[in-house]
Amino acid sequence: MNKYNRIFNFAAGPAMLPEEVLEIAKNEMMNYKNSGMSVMELSHRSSLFNDIITEAEDNLRKLLNIPFNYKVLFLQGGATTQFSSVALHLLKNKAAYINTGHWSNRAIIDARVFGQVDVIASSENESFSYIPDCSNLNLEGYDYLYYCDNNTIYGTKFKKVPNSFGIPLVCDMSSCILSEEIDVSKYGIIFAGAQKNIGPSGVTIVIIREDLINESSVYTPNILKYKIHSEKMSLFNTPPTYIIYMCGLVFKYLLNNGGIKAQEKKNIEKANYLYNYLDHSKFYKTMADKNSRSIMNVVFTTGNKELDLLFVEEAKKVGLENLKGHKVIGGLRASIYNAMPFEGVVTLVEFMKKFEVQYNV
Amino acid sequence: MNKYNRIFNFAAGPAMLPEEVLEIAKNEMMNYKNSGMSVMELSHRSSLFNDIITEAEDNLRKLLNIPFNYKVLFLQGGATTQFSSVALHLLKNKAAYINTGHWSNRAIIDARVFGQVDVIASSENESFSYIPDCSNLNLEGYDYLYYCDNNTIYGTKFKKVPNSFGIPLVCDMSSCILSEEIDVSKYGIIFAGAQKNIGPSGVTIVIIREDLINESSVYTPNILKYKIHSEKMSLFNTPPTYIIYMCGLVFKYLLNNGGIKAQEKKNIEKANYLYNYLDHSKFYKTMADKNSRSIMNVVFTTGNKELDLLFVEEAKKVGLENLKGHKVIGGLRASIYNAMPFEGVVTLVEFMKKFEVQYNV
Repeated sequence: MNKYNRIFNFAAGPAMLPEEVLEIAKNEMMNYKNSGMSVMELSHRSSLFNDIITEAEDNLRKLLNIPFNYKVLFLQGGATTQFSSVALHLLKNKAAYINTGHWSNRAIIDARVFGQVDVIASSENESFSYIPDCSNLNLEGYDYLYYCDNNTIYGTKFKKVPNSFGIPLVCDMSSCILSEEIDVSKYGIIFAGAQKNIGPSGVTIVIIREDLINESSVYTPNILKYKIHSEKMSLFNTPPTYIIYMCGLVFKYLLNNGGIKAQEKKNIEKANYLYNYLDHSKFYKTMADKNSRSIMNVVFTTGNKELDLLFVEEAKKVGLENLKGHKVIGGLRASIYNAMPFEGVVTLVEFMKKFEVQYNV
Repeated sequence: MNKYNRIFNFAAGPAMLPEEVLEIAKNEMMNYKNSGMSVMELSHRSSLFNDIITEAEDNLRKLLNIPFNYKVLFLQGGATTQFSSVALHLLKNKAAYINTGHWSNRAIIDARVFGQVDVIASSENESFSYIPDCSNLNLEGYDYLYYCDNNTIYGTKFKKVPNSFGIPLVCDMSSCILSEEIDVSKYGIIFAGAQKNIGPSGVTIVIIREDLINESSVYTPNILKYKIHSEKMSLFNTPPTYIIYMCGLVFKYLLNNGGIKAQEKKNIEKANYLYNYLDHSKFYKTMADKNSRSIMNVVFTTGNKELDLLFVEEAKKVGLENLKGHKVIGGLRASIYNAMPFEGVVTLVEFMKKFEVQYNV
C-alpha cells in the first residue's frame, strides 16, 4: 500500500507497471516537455516522437545487448499477429514447433493456414506441466524451429535454449522478455507482446535477424511484411505512439535500476521466496515440474476448487488482486513480472500463511 | 493558451484531444475508480475493463445511431490493416475502387495482392483536387465498392455517399468519422483509425454489417478474420486496453456535449470561418475544388514555397503547430478535427492576416 492506495496486481497481463513510470506519464499528460501537447497528440512524424521511438529502440538494444545485424520493430496486433507473420515469412517447406501448451498451440493453428507444421516435441502427455528435452531434436528439412519460452498458463519456462542446429530459431517471449539476460544472437526472430514486462497492451516488439526480413509468401498482406516495417523504421503506418512512449519509459526505468542483470536477480529472489514457501507447505501444491518452473508465473492450488475460489476472494479483500488461475488449468496463479515489488510477494506469502492456518483442516 | 500552456495543434493525426478528456486520464492514471490500479494495468478479462469496452461500444452506437445488424470491432493495426482485411473478406471476383488520392491508392495496392481491383472513378487527372461524380457508376459484376470519404492530404471530402447499387459499400472514414451525422445503413463496412477524431493512435474501429462477417479467403491470417473478432467481442487477443479507454472517454465527452449533431455544427462553423477568410484573401489560395472541400483538413498555400515554410515557422512561434502540408502536395494544411476549438481557428486566421500584411508584396 502507498500514497495512491495502489494494490498488488498479480494479473497475467496486462499487468503491473512501475509506479515511477506511471507517475511520469501522469505528470507529462497535459504538456509533454513544454511542447504544449500530450504525447498522445504528437504527430508520429514529429521530431519529438522521433526522439521517443529512437530512444526506446536504443535503450532496448542496450538492455538486451541486441547485435547490429538485428532489426527492432514496434508493431501492432499482439503476439497473435506474429503467429501468422512468422509462418508467412519463414514457412516454405515445413516448420517444426515445440508444443508446450495453449500459446504454442495457438501459434501452430495459425501457422497451419500457410503450410505444413510438425509438432516435434510436446509436453501434452503430462498436461503441459513440464518442458520437454529439446537438446537434440531431429530438424532435418525444417525451415525453422518455433517455441514459446515462458508458458503463462502452466507456469513453465525453458531453462535452456533449444538447439536449432543452424535453422532459424523463433521464440515467443511475451511473458519473459526483459526478465532475464538472453543471448539474442541465438535467435532468428524474437517477438513479445508488451503487456507483461514491457508496457501497456497495444504494441509488439519484434527482434529479427536481417537476413530473415526479405522473403515472404505471395499471400502476405502488405501490412504484415517485415521488410516494409523494417524499411520504414516502424513508421509505415501510424504506430501506437502513446504505448511506445510508455514502453520507452519502462526501458529507461530498467536501465536506471541496474538493467536486466539486476532485474533478473530481483525476479529470482521473488520467485524463490514464493516457491520456497510453497515447497514447505503441505496445504498448497505447485503445478509445474520443479525443473521447468517459471519465475514469472507461479501456478499453485489448494487442491480444492472451492477453497481456491475462496482464496481469490479473500486475497482481493487485502489488496492482492487477480490470483485466479487460467480457466484452462484452474487453481491459482501469481504472476510476478518485473514490476511486482518484492514486498508484493512477501505480502502474498503472509496472506497464504494466514489462509492456510484458517482453512487447513 | 490556458492553464497548461497548451498550444493549438493542427496536425493531420495523431491530433488534438479534448483537454477535459486528457484531464480525466491524468487524474485516473495512478488509481482507476479506486481499483488500486491504472487502466493500463487492468486485465482485459476484468469486469472493470469489460465495463470500459462495453460502454465505449454502447456510446459509439448512440453517437452514430448504428443499427442492430452491425457489429462494432475495436482492432489493432490501423486503417492500413483494413486495406488487406477488406479484400481478404470481400474480394472474390473483382472489386471497384474510387481513387481520390494517396490513401485510396494505398488501399488499392494492398487489395491487389488478393485479386482484381478496378479503379472505376478517379480524380487523378486533376491531382486529386476534387471528388469525382459517383452517382451512377457501372458496378456490374463487382463484389464491392470502396472509397475513402475524407482525403486528409488533398483536403477533399465526398459530399454525397456514392451509389453502390446494392453491392456492399466499404468506406475508410479515418479522418472524418464522428465529424458529421452519417447513415450507417448505407454501408457494408466502415473503418477508421482512431488518431484523428476518436482518440490516440493504436486502435481501429470497424463497423461491419453482420452478413459480411463470415466468409473470407483461405489465405486469411486468423488474426485478420472478422468472424473471430466478432465472436470474441474484440477480445480474441489482448486488445489495446488503454487506447480503448481513451476512445471511450472521447465518446462520453461527445455525448455530453450534444452528440454528433452539435459537433457537426461546430465543425462547419470552424471550416466556414477559415474558408471564408481564404476565399476573400488575394494572398492565400485554397487547393481543393470548392464543391469537394473537407471540413476537417483545409489545404492552402501562399503560392510561394519559401513563404509557406516561413509561415509554418512563424506560426509555430505563436503556438500554432503542424501547419505544414503533406509532402505529397506541399503547401499548408490546417487539420481542424473535432477537438480543435473555434478559438484555435480564430487565432489561426488572426495570424494569417498579420502574415499577409507583412509578406504580401
